[in-house]
Amino acid sequence: MRILGIDPGLGITGYGLIDINGDNFRLIEAGAIRSHQSESIDNRLSEIYQKLIRLIKETKPDVLVLEELYSHYKHPRTSILMGHARGVICLACSQCGIPLISYPSTRIKKSIVGRGHGSKEQIQRTVVSLLGLKRIPELLDVTDALALAMCHAYISKSNIKNQIVRLAR
Amino acid sequence: MRILGIDPGLGITGYGLIDINGDNFRLIEAGAIRSHQSESIDNRLSEIYQKLIRLIKETKPDVLVLEELYSHYKHPRTSILMGHARGVICLACSQCGIPLISYPSTRIKKSIVGRGHGSKEQIQRTVVSLLGLKRIPELLDVTDALALAMCHAYISKSNIKNQIVRLAR
Repeated sequence: MRILGIDPGLGITGYGLIDINGDNFRLIEAGAIRSHQSESIDNRLSEIYQKLIRLIKETKPDVLVLEELYSHYKHPRTSILMGHARGVICLACSQCGIPLISYPSTRIKKSIVGRGHGSKEQIQRTVVSLLGLKRIPELLDVTDALALAMCHAYISKSNIKNQIVRLAR
Repeated sequence: MRILGIDPGLGITGYGLIDINGDNFRLIEAGAIRSHQSESIDNRLSEIYQKLIRLIKETKPDVLVLEELYSHYKHPRTSILMGHARGVICLACSQCGIPLISYPSTRIKKSIVGRGHGSKEQIQRTVVSLLGLKRIPELLDVTDALALAMCHAYISKSNIKNQIVRLAR
């Protein structure tokens, strides 16, 4: 199964693509889609949308994973702009016919570092170690996107194991 | 000039399309694009996007007008979901090659009722009277969208008049 995790933002949208095969993870590609502040909002969103569509067509993920929305945000205006980017990402997902899954922040942290309230640095170190990366990604948005993909990998594996146990009983 | 005003929302997106010709306004079409709560967010956004693209292709507006974002929102989560809808509307605008304009709430109210802090009911009554509608639109989202289109009509007319005055001097 190929999983695409995405951490949306109007300026920087992080993405991380991994393959899972049995108990093994493999990093396929990770990076950021950027849009320039000097451009109008409609052109920035169009750039994010088109680059994501191209990425999906080239890499063919089986599922796209986002973080669920919170109920409270520290910076409402910034989070509404994030919502604009998240909107076109959801749209790209629907237009390409890929299932969209979202997990709450605590579930993502728990599946990566074993606790629902791990720090950003703990998540960063664990992602780097589990994927065997040579260095920490420069952008936190990229690590967060990889953490999302890995969270879905763990949850899918555990669901498959539970199904096997259920079938074996 | 044909102006399309849009009041975005994930559940209900109001739209109002008017023509201006000299000093005359004419209502072309107004209504709402709805998406169903039972659908997934990606399908809801896809529905809004596709219906808006169809509306633009059928009615050929020269410009699309939105309200500018505020700096504070009473209900952050709802406003982030509005941001998702606003995002795909901005994208549709870019994909169709139509200019996108936005005005702050106070500017819209001032151009319609003469003051920057008019009530929703005042705006509703003024829109109905200026467009010669037989009854108040059932949805406030539709009146707000029409107010946006009319705000742009007033501002464009006043800009044209200023240019003529400047040329005549």
